[in-house]
Amino acid sequence: MTDQHSISRRRLLSTAGAAGAAGLAVGGAGGVLGSTAAHHSTPLTAVGSTMVPFHGTHQAGITTPAQARGHIVAFDLAPGADRKAAAGLMRRWSAAAEAMTAGRTPAGDDQIALDAGPCSLTVTFGFGASFFPKAGLADHAPAALVPMPAFPSDAIDPKQSNGDLWIQIGADDPLVAFHALRILQKEAAGVATPRWQMNGFNRTPGATARPMTVRNLMGQIDGTNNPKPTDKDFDAKIFVPDKSGPQAWMNGGSYAVVRRIRMLLDPWDDLTETEQEQVIGRRKSNGAPLSAPAPTGIETTPVDLEKVNPDGSLAIPGDAHIRVAAAQSNAGATILRRAFSYHDGYRADGSPDAGLLFICWQADPTTGFIQIQLKLDGSDHLTRFIRHESSAIFAVPGGAQPGEYVGQHLLEA
Amino acid sequence: MTDQHSISRRRLLSTAGAAGAAGLAVGGAGGVLGSTAAHHSTPLTAVGSTMVPFHGTHQAGITTPAQARGHIVAFDLAPGADRKAAAGLMRRWSAAAEAMTAGRTPAGDDQIALDAGPCSLTVTFGFGASFFPKAGLADHAPAALVPMPAFPSDAIDPKQSNGDLWIQIGADDPLVAFHALRILQKEAAGVATPRWQMNGFNRTPGATARPMTVRNLMGQIDGTNNPKPTDKDFDAKIFVPDKSGPQAWMNGGSYAVVRRIRMLLDPWDDLTETEQEQVIGRRKSNGAPLSAPAPTGIETTPVDLEKVNPDGSLAIPGDAHIRVAAAQSNAGATILRRAFSYHDGYRADGSPDAGLLFICWQADPTTGFIQIQLKLDGSDHLTRFIRHESSAIFAVPGGAQPGEYVGQHLLEA
Repeated sequence: MTDQHSISRRRLLSTAGAAGAAGLAVGGAGGVLGSTAAHHSTPLTAVGSTMVPFHGTHQAGITTPAQARGHIVAFDLAPGADRKAAAGLMRRWSAAAEAMTAGRTPAGDDQIALDAGPCSLTVTFGFGASFFPKAGLADHAPAALVPMPAFPSDAIDPKQSNGDLWIQIGADDPLVAFHALRILQKEAAGVATPRWQMNGFNRTPGATARPMTVRNLMGQIDGTNNPKPTDKDFDAKIFVPDKSGPQAWMNGGSYAVVRRIRMLLDPWDDLTETEQEQVIGRRKSNGAPLSAPAPTGIETTPVDLEKVNPDGSLAIPGDAHIRVAAAQSNAGATILRRAFSYHDGYRADGSPDAGLLFICWQADPTTGFIQIQLKLDGSDHLTRFIRHESSAIFAVPGGAQPGEYVGQHLLEA
Repeated sequence: MTDQHSISRRRLLSTAGAAGAAGLAVGGAGGVLGSTAAHHSTPLTAVGSTMVPFHGTHQAGITTPAQARGHIVAFDLAPGADRKAAAGLMRRWSAAAEAMTAGRTPAGDDQIALDAGPCSLTVTFGFGASFFPKAGLADHAPAALVPMPAFPSDAIDPKQSNGDLWIQIGADDPLVAFHALRILQKEAAGVATPRWQMNGFNRTPGATARPMTVRNLMGQIDGTNNPKPTDKDFDAKIFVPDKSGPQAWMNGGSYAVVRRIRMLLDPWDDLTETEQEQVIGRRKSNGAPLSAPAPTGIETTPVDLEKVNPDGSLAIPGDAHIRVAAAQSNAGATILRRAFSYHDGYRADGSPDAGLLFICWQADPTTGFIQIQLKLDGSDHLTRFIRHESSAIFAVPGGAQPGEYVGQHLLEA
């Protein structure tokens, strides 16, 4: 049965290019005129057929464009699970992830994603600080994997924070993403149990005419100043440099800081648009920095923190988010932000339980997120409109080569 | 500001056709090679530019193909809110829905969806039985809007059930869907408060090479026998026929039965694939009925309930879901199923809180869902692997004509 399914998945992938171009026009009409209610008539397009390689120097899901759907899940090792059990789990997880990201069926498949293309699926694995002593690997715990400081504005729920193991799943199709989550969770049976799990989303590919533009649930354009892989110091800022010794297993790896940041959308929406722009430091409509007078400023116009208004006040206010978070305000600290929005309904007080599954990547959390957050917390005007409610740091090893599994250099050290 | 945004939205829509075709190839490469992590480089395609008209004989969101993202939300009238207040709310809601579904910004916009196309957004409004006495409209309550019977297998949470008003939102982009939910919830301030709210999803358009195929979280192909708008009795089964008198406001309307059906995925996955197929009555891989021997049977092969195996047993078991649910087992009872899957993490016992936001449409719930469910509950093998946890019936009036609002014929009767 697995072979038959593999063949059918491969066949659909090989014909994807042809189907994609022809399919678009059909899909547009079907969206309105489709003859059945529950069925989209759009055939496989690039959205479905795009495949992100599992193997590589770095794990996928770090520099990969963020997908429309995301799951993050932390596990704790079951009592008695040792290094050998963890190695077996990482081997099974890597095999399942490699199969699913390539559009093949994993062992023990439940067929949820059977007809779909890989849909840019990525699966990224990490280790929390609590993993190392439990697995008898305390000597191999990275020095960079520090505890997160308690920031004054934090409202952290420990049950929704930290964890021994972490998986980040992203895909442009919700069923493909759920399928990966379900398969990986079942593979963990007896070795690790879910500690917390969160669902997020981004734009569906093709939804906007401004594809470079990411808006968050505050309506604000987000991530404009993210570092780019083409920047000359990108690798040094984001990935762990090669070294020898007991921490060499992190060569090519990165550290993920995960913060569930609830947005206080009701107070936020009570502000005028101009007030919101003062909080962020950018025009809401197009993302131009307030230092670039309309109509010439655009999202990519460089930020001028020194610019003053005719009345002598700072064009970008002293407590504006983009000023306080800027690298030049934080000794050059740089993080790669790769977030998902989330919305989990309403809280008991009627306010939306919605915001950002903030995930950022850096070579060292102390000189990355922590350095920036120490500055932001308290002095960033935005702090008054958000709540950090969960927190974690994970050591994310480099990518596996074909035949290897993720974390093998740690677990078989 | 609103005008400026409207122009930019209209411009993006008018250029969508050209952008769509060129954009696809770029999107495919961008999926892997994009230079920034948080940005998809797919420009607007048919996924984003497709617009579903708000006005019409019937409301949108009934025969419209189900979108990738769905929100359903029920509201209760605030204490003291009367018929006039409800009329004002329905007028504001209709105006906002009309604007957003056409890709324009609504009043009080928060810009969350500013750069996106309409993404097949639909907004569908309904009234629960509790609405009518509160609004002084008891005389106009439809006779068909009966209380839901208590089925023996039900595990209904009353707080997640019923409600005075109901909105169903669907869109192919999660931010467009959230935007609509947020705008409509804010419009209700002072008149109605959210009672319950649920999030669901379906395939992203373009994710599969088998676009007619919808799989649920059990991995089973779903909705195969849905009635089609081209069926000769479709309108009679799904839409309320025209009549005069105090219930004439429901002419062209339909009744929505909403059931949050949790799937017991762990026990389900403990079954073999063959056992799962016996529960449903169809092959899991391709949806062919068990009455059609492999390899000739396909999803659309007609079901033969009389077919027997060589050993004399029924090919489709006596308690198989498709037998018990079939129209011929239920005096011709027909419903239009238009569901979203849901996944809200894990329950305290570690099992997934996942399943189906089952929404079905019919001209009369008593001869539609209720008649079928009276039969299914207890005798359908599938009952042992699902739990109905919330329940509601809503009267969904016909569509508004330009210049009207939904429910106007009720509220200004």
